[in-house]
Amino acid sequence: MVNIYDTANQLERELRETSQYNELKEAHAEVLADEDAASILNEFQSLQQALHQKQHSGEEITEEEAQEAQVLPIKMNANELTKKLMDKEQALNTLLTEVNSIIMKPVQEIYEQ
Amino acid sequence: MVNIYDTANQLERELRETSQYNELKEAHAEVLADEDAASILNEFQSLQQALHQKQHSGEEITEEEAQEAQVLPIKMNANELTKKLMDKEQALNTLLTEVNSIIMKPVQEIYEQ
Repeated sequence: MVNIYDTANQLERELRETSQYNELKEAHAEVLADEDAASILNEFQSLQQALHQKQHSGEEITEEEAQEAQVLPIKMNANELTKKLMDKEQALNTLLTEVNSIIMKPVQEIYEQ
Repeated sequence: MVNIYDTANQLERELRETSQYNELKEAHAEVLADEDAASILNEFQSLQQALHQKQHSGEEITEEEAQEAQVLPIKMNANELTKKLMDKEQALNTLLTEVNSIIMKPVQEIYEQ
């Protein structure tokens, strides 16, 4: 019996050693240490959570939320620290997408038949 | 420099050896070998693809599609082979969700601060 969990745990440890992970961790700490950036991130995360919940429940979003959804990404981009955080998130996402597509190859093969 | 891709490839090879993977592969082959089951699966996959596309484009689903979305899961459950396929998909999904939550733990930790 293969222990796929051991390998998943190895991958987890290796992820912690990648530059992508460590740069994201650092960028996130820098945001939290800055009052303005932390406040923008907090607003952004609250909005994302609210929109997610409404998407699941089928509830309609308010006009205020729709406006925030337009303004907050602009605020995130305008602040140096939250902008850096988003860039580092994207870099880590690229790595994770590649890792995931490797792992999922066997499953994809089944459905390609 | 850690080579996380080597470990992802190892995980990919190990996934192919799990009972969950091999049982799904077998169940899928059994469906394809049976005319009725293959036809139900084909209809189901076509509908899923159509609904996915419309969800992304924001296009409204037709009344026919809404009706199919109610009927096809019932058909899938009523056919022994497609039912078995769905059960095996669910078993593999449980494994993959566990593997994914292990790998994503470091990322989750960053945002929990």
